[in-house]
Amino acid sequence: MTRRTMVKQEPKEVRVFAPATVANVACGYDVLGFAINEPGDEVVVRHSDKPGLRITKITGDDGKLPKTVEGNTAGVAALDLLRHLGMTDRGIEMEIHKKMPFGSGLGSSAASAVAGVYAVNKLIGEPLSKLQLLPFAMTGEASADGAYHADNVGPSLLGGIVFIRSNQELDIAQLPVPKNLYAAVVHPDIEILTKVAREILPKEIPLENATQQIGNLGGLICGLIQEDYGMISRSIHDVIAEPRRQKLIPEFYKAKRSALANGALGFSISGAGPSVFALCEGKDTAKKVAAAVSKVFTDAGLGNQQHVSPINKNGVHVI
Amino acid sequence: MTRRTMVKQEPKEVRVFAPATVANVACGYDVLGFAINEPGDEVVVRHSDKPGLRITKITGDDGKLPKTVEGNTAGVAALDLLRHLGMTDRGIEMEIHKKMPFGSGLGSSAASAVAGVYAVNKLIGEPLSKLQLLPFAMTGEASADGAYHADNVGPSLLGGIVFIRSNQELDIAQLPVPKNLYAAVVHPDIEILTKVAREILPKEIPLENATQQIGNLGGLICGLIQEDYGMISRSIHDVIAEPRRQKLIPEFYKAKRSALANGALGFSISGAGPSVFALCEGKDTAKKVAAAVSKVFTDAGLGNQQHVSPINKNGVHVI
Repeated sequence: MTRRTMVKQEPKEVRVFAPATVANVACGYDVLGFAINEPGDEVVVRHSDKPGLRITKITGDDGKLPKTVEGNTAGVAALDLLRHLGMTDRGIEMEIHKKMPFGSGLGSSAASAVAGVYAVNKLIGEPLSKLQLLPFAMTGEASADGAYHADNVGPSLLGGIVFIRSNQELDIAQLPVPKNLYAAVVHPDIEILTKVAREILPKEIPLENATQQIGNLGGLICGLIQEDYGMISRSIHDVIAEPRRQKLIPEFYKAKRSALANGALGFSISGAGPSVFALCEGKDTAKKVAAAVSKVFTDAGLGNQQHVSPINKNGVHVI
Repeated sequence: MTRRTMVKQEPKEVRVFAPATVANVACGYDVLGFAINEPGDEVVVRHSDKPGLRITKITGDDGKLPKTVEGNTAGVAALDLLRHLGMTDRGIEMEIHKKMPFGSGLGSSAASAVAGVYAVNKLIGEPLSKLQLLPFAMTGEASADGAYHADNVGPSLLGGIVFIRSNQELDIAQLPVPKNLYAAVVHPDIEILTKVAREILPKEIPLENATQQIGNLGGLICGLIQEDYGMISRSIHDVIAEPRRQKLIPEFYKAKRSALANGALGFSISGAGPSVFALCEGKDTAKKVAAAVSKVFTDAGLGNQQHVSPINKNGVHVI
């Protein structure tokens, strides 16, 4: 057998879906994230006679995103890939369908970046693997929030629970997902900018807190690997970001108490918020927890959306 | 089958060996430790007609330890167990044979505490399991260094690589040990008091350093579980304690460079020092690394002892 570059035949059009993600996962600030089944973003790409990548249509953004390629993360990620491959003269039209809100804490810009780069890679015959697309998706997301990290992009691309040893070295591992692990995610209708949520964090933390967080992160990994729900539950604590960021989310502690009272293994903020999430053993518990948390926000006069999902194991895919 | 307390017949005399341990393991400050085959401490216990626990002999301590039960960790740990069982009136004689130096960073006081409580538990018919002895051994060690933590006591008792999610809640897990993982340990002849090594640590650390350490600790656990020596190697970095504590160890960075140049997966300080350790793939590499590190200390006029060992999987045992 001869060794050759496995470039597949190019399809005429590709439509993909990239899922929302929960980053940080309580004890894994900047190093952990997982994907859920929905919501997510869709991107459609097709060949064009006109050279270069162009964005021809954007829906679901309330007119907030410019149609320039540099104006949104899907375009930036795809362009970065094309540059890497020396293919910027390829004629490609891109449509972006935002199906999740901005600033929700569910990795909206990451999902767009992943969808954009994955769709274009498919359209040009899939020269790179999913894992090889990671740095381009990260560049796309970084164009929106300024930070180069993989805790949303990683799971949206690869699926599952992704652990990032180092964002700088792009050293990541997919953790095993216990079969019966479900996420209950609730997004209250307020917007928190990642920038603000980052600025609220201290530059220094007590060594004791770091040790606690290190213990819990290790505990969560052990719990996931050994399918030990007790260990998972005891590990879902965030002593670094949550105590500060909860101030940005009305009724956070009431929602947390309600989630735990209804059987959640643990509860915290999804990414930079305002979405909150609970991990649960079993779908029924996750439904009950999502409903209870939703009720807390509703009672406080806050509109909200619930999402109950197993951990999404596949990440971005063609639809 | 009826349920009953499984108390075995009491032997006349018990002689046990508890191994030395490497705590912290670079990225696992206060949450990780492993046992090596030697050195270690021996304790002998036997029944006596005179009520109460008494220490009748101590060797290898250069006369530093008092013979009162409260004067050393083996006595304190054993007494704490006897109190818990309501058996303080049992007549027991204890001999302690210190076979490792104090203040070496190899868990000397932990090994004595583990040996003491394990021996007495055996002598009185083994009412408790190894795991159940952990809190008593921790009390013993705490009597020497004031801190209640399991990163030396845990592996000396149980063997293997022990991860401690929480010292307060005593929530621990044994991590899998890759078959070919060896430790090269070198003890230079200087003494560092744990108290001094603790005081040199900052009370606060940059959030960025905490995130790096969390990433590396998670990476090390993933690497151990997946037997991924590359991931293990990339994870053995300590950005919290090592940069401060290396000042207490002459030629630390020279020794580190020499260890890495000779093929070590990683190199750092064992516990509070002054012992240093390297993790290596294979015994031959570990031997080479130990010799190279030893040479650095010798060249600097520092006497030192080398120990090359696989990870000790059994912990304390009867000899």
